[in-house]
Amino acid sequence: MFGITLDRKSPVALSRQICNRIRELILTSALPAGDALPSTRELAGHLAIARSTVTEAYEMLWAEGYVSSRQGARYRVQDGVELHGVGTTGGAPADAKTHSVPQKRIRYDFRTGIPDVEHFPYGAWERMRRNVLDTLKPGDLLYGDVKGYEPLRRAVARWLLRSRGMHVDVDNVFVTSGATQAVGLAVETVRGSGDFVVEDPCHIGVTQFLRLRKIGFRGVPVDEHGIRVDRIGKRSPGGVYVTPSHQFPLGHVMSASRRAQLVTLARTMDFCIIEDDYDSEFRYGGPPLSPLYALDPERVVYVGTFSKTLLPALRVGFAVVPGRWHAAWTDLRRYTDVQNPVLEQVLVQEFLDQRKMDRHVKTMTRLYKRKREMVIDAVETAFGGAAEVLGDGAGLHLAVRIENGKFGKEFRRLCLEKSISVMPCGRYALEPGRHDDILLLGYGNVDAEAIHKGIRELHRLASGGKG
Amino acid sequence: MFGITLDRKSPVALSRQICNRIRELILTSALPAGDALPSTRELAGHLAIARSTVTEAYEMLWAEGYVSSRQGARYRVQDGVELHGVGTTGGAPADAKTHSVPQKRIRYDFRTGIPDVEHFPYGAWERMRRNVLDTLKPGDLLYGDVKGYEPLRRAVARWLLRSRGMHVDVDNVFVTSGATQAVGLAVETVRGSGDFVVEDPCHIGVTQFLRLRKIGFRGVPVDEHGIRVDRIGKRSPGGVYVTPSHQFPLGHVMSASRRAQLVTLARTMDFCIIEDDYDSEFRYGGPPLSPLYALDPERVVYVGTFSKTLLPALRVGFAVVPGRWHAAWTDLRRYTDVQNPVLEQVLVQEFLDQRKMDRHVKTMTRLYKRKREMVIDAVETAFGGAAEVLGDGAGLHLAVRIENGKFGKEFRRLCLEKSISVMPCGRYALEPGRHDDILLLGYGNVDAEAIHKGIRELHRLASGGKG
Repeated sequence: MFGITLDRKSPVALSRQICNRIRELILTSALPAGDALPSTRELAGHLAIARSTVTEAYEMLWAEGYVSSRQGARYRVQDGVELHGVGTTGGAPADAKTHSVPQKRIRYDFRTGIPDVEHFPYGAWERMRRNVLDTLKPGDLLYGDVKGYEPLRRAVARWLLRSRGMHVDVDNVFVTSGATQAVGLAVETVRGSGDFVVEDPCHIGVTQFLRLRKIGFRGVPVDEHGIRVDRIGKRSPGGVYVTPSHQFPLGHVMSASRRAQLVTLARTMDFCIIEDDYDSEFRYGGPPLSPLYALDPERVVYVGTFSKTLLPALRVGFAVVPGRWHAAWTDLRRYTDVQNPVLEQVLVQEFLDQRKMDRHVKTMTRLYKRKREMVIDAVETAFGGAAEVLGDGAGLHLAVRIENGKFGKEFRRLCLEKSISVMPCGRYALEPGRHDDILLLGYGNVDAEAIHKGIRELHRLASGGKG
Repeated sequence: MFGITLDRKSPVALSRQICNRIRELILTSALPAGDALPSTRELAGHLAIARSTVTEAYEMLWAEGYVSSRQGARYRVQDGVELHGVGTTGGAPADAKTHSVPQKRIRYDFRTGIPDVEHFPYGAWERMRRNVLDTLKPGDLLYGDVKGYEPLRRAVARWLLRSRGMHVDVDNVFVTSGATQAVGLAVETVRGSGDFVVEDPCHIGVTQFLRLRKIGFRGVPVDEHGIRVDRIGKRSPGGVYVTPSHQFPLGHVMSASRRAQLVTLARTMDFCIIEDDYDSEFRYGGPPLSPLYALDPERVVYVGTFSKTLLPALRVGFAVVPGRWHAAWTDLRRYTDVQNPVLEQVLVQEFLDQRKMDRHVKTMTRLYKRKREMVIDAVETAFGGAAEVLGDGAGLHLAVRIENGKFGKEFRRLCLEKSISVMPCGRYALEPGRHDDILLLGYGNVDAEAIHKGIRELHRLASGGKG
């Protein structure tokens, strides 16, 4: 079957041998796009090996993007992954793959916060789109509720309950154009008179927003337990922005005691907390997290997004906003951009209510976990003991500290020259020079080949081009 | 045929008699939803009358929302227009109709800026949606260009050329979340140090935005030639916001000499002009207008939207932005809400590129023109010589001055009690007490019955409840 012969004496695992052979067939179009792979039972019987070995091989192919799996159906060969032109051997697989990837110049996309679009359930989404959008009433196509499409707000509240154990009043759920807009509206709505406090390091989207809006702010360092609450100081801040579920960019989970300290301080000094939970749907170990929001729902604005779980281009995020800020929030939104468009809101609502989201997040968690392990493997192989992986197992990126590493703009430029998009952590440091030895490796939009090759190349560049 | 008998001696026009009879059949479900009306030839032959009389009757039914017409096909009975419950006679037709209208409590919706959603070409749109969205590449579903989806930006540039004669560089076209966001971004991007100048009266969305952003502004009165440029004063403004194609809310077109004065002043004092062309696609007479933008493309930010031509809930608008402001605009957008979602952008692009937009605007112009005439008729019937219609024949609303009228919050409240949503012009006046004798009548979302009944009721309320 497929002319697969296994070499049982080879150091290469049987599953890897099967994967390699099938990938070759795909690259040379011997197995054309759309074709189904044999069932695991069938191929395992034919090769006289354990079925789990075949499953493993298929999952490798899937993780690498060569085959798709649509909810229980057979694995099928993806479109656009075959090689064209002369020569089908050599270093081509990764190139062939990345030809279908958005960033044309980028072969190794280690950007943070970019989900895997290859494994998005297009089929289910498409069927849903056909059915769902027909149910829209003309009235839904005029100006709607500034707060968002009512059924979506309800769906988000239910989703927060089953995915995070959060009890949320639907009235407090506000749909936004992604987490970016939610954080911006939150900052403008809740801020008091003092400087805003952000974590250091912090996502540049937040600090740039504060600069643009001419809102004074200062960074407070984080350690492995989260923001150093003791360093917030004696002056009451205008508000505090934190990422307790997965510190951006370092990746730590904020400890329970640090959470308690922060909320206590917020009550004492009377400031508000913005909790940005941008990607904690994907958690690869440890007990489920309870949001900071649960500690004080009257003082915390909780921000979430579907950009990572679904697709960034949908621009659907949300905030859970305490009642005292509803009027200000609504006013600001009304006169800024009015509301989200309706199509995406209906689709996300159906995706949630049909529980397709639950299944999708489960599938993607499995995939991202594997990719994350691949990244860690590749880093250990390339850098050995010089590399230390930071943070907890969650989200779409990890931070790696490299002994004696010095990653600045110049390093990023060198990487781009080699078709690698990677962000040094120093870019997000408010105190210049901090975290210069840390690289951020997003794994949402890379496949196995790109991970291995890209990190090998990163190591070469980090060692001054030798290696 | 349909048991229609005509009374040739009646003062009621034959076309109106046919219209009334068919409406009755629809209301009582004798003609159920989806059924086609007989062809005009057929019915005209049967009744031995001119075919144009039948056409007129059908167009009345169409204008009233009882039948739909889908691009050349036969007129068919609309869904949800039949009466339920006891009694099918009496004052019910308008009620039956408005049951399918968004604002549940509002029977007579004279709000400005609301398009007719009943006549949106859902069929064509739906077919397009099925075909078009499948062509999206995975990369289109990640974060895209902050400026907007490139093919849409090209389509908008071409649309501006064929609909407005504007020569626009694609690089200058920025997609936005409706005109609201476009105006907001423009104000923040181009403003100089002085107070911003707006027309008085002015759309409340703009003045509220300026207040929220704590940007100083002052109103400069308009007359029938547009903004009183001579009243802008000697201090250079931080920028000027105008609606030259259809002054909001009074409806005048800015005269050529006033345009020249404004641009000359802008050059002398070195300020920027924001031209909000929110609904001039619909023009019912007079020569086509050239935008202010054409007089100085380096100094005018031109703002347009598809909220009125298509649907508000798509949230697709755009601005044509001179090069010197590109960087600031892009920064602001990137850190505010990143970009528009992609689905609507692709749909609008296809709608434009397939020239469906051209046809749609033509159809809707015919419809709105008729509705506008109905409003004017109804106003004249109800108010007689006490009413004066202001402004030029364009857009989705008109302003009416009523002799000795005094329309304030209390009047609006009274109207809402009677299920009428109507906005007194005074609401938009910056100088309190001005324009208190003017009512704004939007006709996008009302049908013939609602126009006649609603305006009769308005007259009654305006006369202190008598009448």
